[in-house]
Amino acid sequence: MKHTITLAAATLALTFSATAQEAETPVAPSPGEIVDAAPYEDWVTIDPEDLVVMTLAPDAEGNARKVVIQLIGAPFSQGWVENIRTLARAEYWDGSEVLRVQDNYVTQWGQPDPEMGVDPKPVPEGLNVMTEADYVAIPPIDLQAASLAGFGPLSHGREIWTLPIGTDNYADFVTYIDGFPIAGASISFEKIEDGPPLPDVIPGKGNRMWPVHCYGMVGVGRNYSPDTGDASQLYTVIGHAPRHLDRNIALVGRIVDGMEHLSSLPRGKGPLGFYEDPAKRVPILSVRIGADLPASEQPHFEYLSTESVSFAAYVEARANRRDPFFIMPAGGADICNIPVPVRPFELMDEGE
Amino acid sequence: MKHTITLAAATLALTFSATAQEAETPVAPSPGEIVDAAPYEDWVTIDPEDLVVMTLAPDAEGNARKVVIQLIGAPFSQGWVENIRTLARAEYWDGSEVLRVQDNYVTQWGQPDPEMGVDPKPVPEGLNVMTEADYVAIPPIDLQAASLAGFGPLSHGREIWTLPIGTDNYADFVTYIDGFPIAGASISFEKIEDGPPLPDVIPGKGNRMWPVHCYGMVGVGRNYSPDTGDASQLYTVIGHAPRHLDRNIALVGRIVDGMEHLSSLPRGKGPLGFYEDPAKRVPILSVRIGADLPASEQPHFEYLSTESVSFAAYVEARANRRDPFFIMPAGGADICNIPVPVRPFELMDEGE
Repeated sequence: MKHTITLAAATLALTFSATAQEAETPVAPSPGEIVDAAPYEDWVTIDPEDLVVMTLAPDAEGNARKVVIQLIGAPFSQGWVENIRTLARAEYWDGSEVLRVQDNYVTQWGQPDPEMGVDPKPVPEGLNVMTEADYVAIPPIDLQAASLAGFGPLSHGREIWTLPIGTDNYADFVTYIDGFPIAGASISFEKIEDGPPLPDVIPGKGNRMWPVHCYGMVGVGRNYSPDTGDASQLYTVIGHAPRHLDRNIALVGRIVDGMEHLSSLPRGKGPLGFYEDPAKRVPILSVRIGADLPASEQPHFEYLSTESVSFAAYVEARANRRDPFFIMPAGGADICNIPVPVRPFELMDEGE
Repeated sequence: MKHTITLAAATLALTFSATAQEAETPVAPSPGEIVDAAPYEDWVTIDPEDLVVMTLAPDAEGNARKVVIQLIGAPFSQGWVENIRTLARAEYWDGSEVLRVQDNYVTQWGQPDPEMGVDPKPVPEGLNVMTEADYVAIPPIDLQAASLAGFGPLSHGREIWTLPIGTDNYADFVTYIDGFPIAGASISFEKIEDGPPLPDVIPGKGNRMWPVHCYGMVGVGRNYSPDTGDASQLYTVIGHAPRHLDRNIALVGRIVDGMEHLSSLPRGKGPLGFYEDPAKRVPILSVRIGADLPASEQPHFEYLSTESVSFAAYVEARANRRDPFFIMPAGGADICNIPVPVRPFELMDEGE
């Protein structure tokens, strides 16, 4: 079964009554068409060890609700990512709940806090305790030197490149690494001229990279600094990218399937969108690592390699829409307006 | 009743178990606290003639669902705005439906298209027929000259200013006018170097301004070019700002109340998020202009003047979060990550 990625590159045409204009000149492909035409080798299979399957209670009509998260790879947030595997394998989240849905911001889930009147479920032993410095990663190259040299393709094992279709208000540059949106500071990124003194340790200052809070990214709830969260409570972005959270909180992955089950929930009426009525909290039946599931239940997803020529063409087309609906290409784009294409695939039975 | 704007400037703290660190130095106000402290005179009352009240059928639990839209003012999209008043006063939308909900994109409503198997409800006579040139507005000053002069406060009857905390990938500059996010091209804004030839008439090229597709903005569904839509089908943005739609479609306003009734609906399973099952479409009971309602039902909303000192401080604080949850201020922000504060107010009875 093909995932209908084309639809994600949607228009606002009233398709049922629309008649496409007859093309007298060649029609430029839409971003979705570029993705559909990408050759097999441009797709990267996501390791089931990096997939988390969260099963919510069925909806009011009895429809199943399954959410699949892709965990981010090294060098980003790996202590928290390891905690997520530990928590899932301890079945910590079984019987947890969606606790909070705040419009244009986040949906958050986990075990209810003790202050919610519930005895806390203990987390498994051995979780990593992470520091604020871990919100960012030190790239294995000197970004500053590379930047001064003009930011050609950099190497951290493979090539990366800076997004060629725009600037960024939250970082020195943005790029994609292994299918994730990543920002970085190649030189001292510090625009603050006034205000209270900043902390002594500024983990994001210079030669650092970090994941970006785009729609569908998954992060770790935490208390006030210096707490960094143990990954037992997670959230996903359901609105415009809250980029001010970058470098202030750990990002651990992104939703690759079932996002609508988290984004379309009723908004909580309490402060910060917490559900005041416990009955409103959607129960979470189980959370499992994909690789641990029986073969017949294992999730299979692939993403369009962000290092591929197809992806570069897709980025360019997102920034310069020339497909028939558009009359005025923008000439640029924000990184969070260019979601990385992902789709499920089915394993062929042997012999087929 | 105060609208709890503070909550919109939210943190991800697990508030129920959080203990704020003891402040040894003065704590910088959060954006929400700046808004709450804004003096009365910084708030602008929205004319009830510019408010549209859309009443949806109650939800499954019988809760009322009301959505309030603020129509945009001159010089933007006024032909479509006038059509909306005409359509509402003809009670055209009574008995219409939410037709489409596409995740991370838009919710769209109106009368079903004939192709959906329903006889079309005729629109009232006298609707304005708009052109693509009307997607943008000609400002009453020469933006290019002003830009060359350094973009001090410009005048279009009042002062405007360019967003001081970032750049924009979709325009030469962004600002706010009368409570709306606005982009503009002061000089020839054309980054396209290759691709098919552009149309002869490029309405957004130079010395033009246009509204921006931020979360909650309301636009006009249309067919393929040169159709521009008559405003009988409308949509609102429910995800990351689809800025590539700027200058390609008319924006006519923004949701100021009840956004959650449109953003939390189940996503449609058909192409582009259209509901394939007509039973899934939420009925729209009525759409009325605020000024036409009985006094007791009239909506009262005010927004924080985007020309006020309070708003400038709010913008700066959104770009440089120093409130206790944050450890790393971003130093910048995208315009769609700085929503204009709006709140309801109640009229005092005479004699009180």
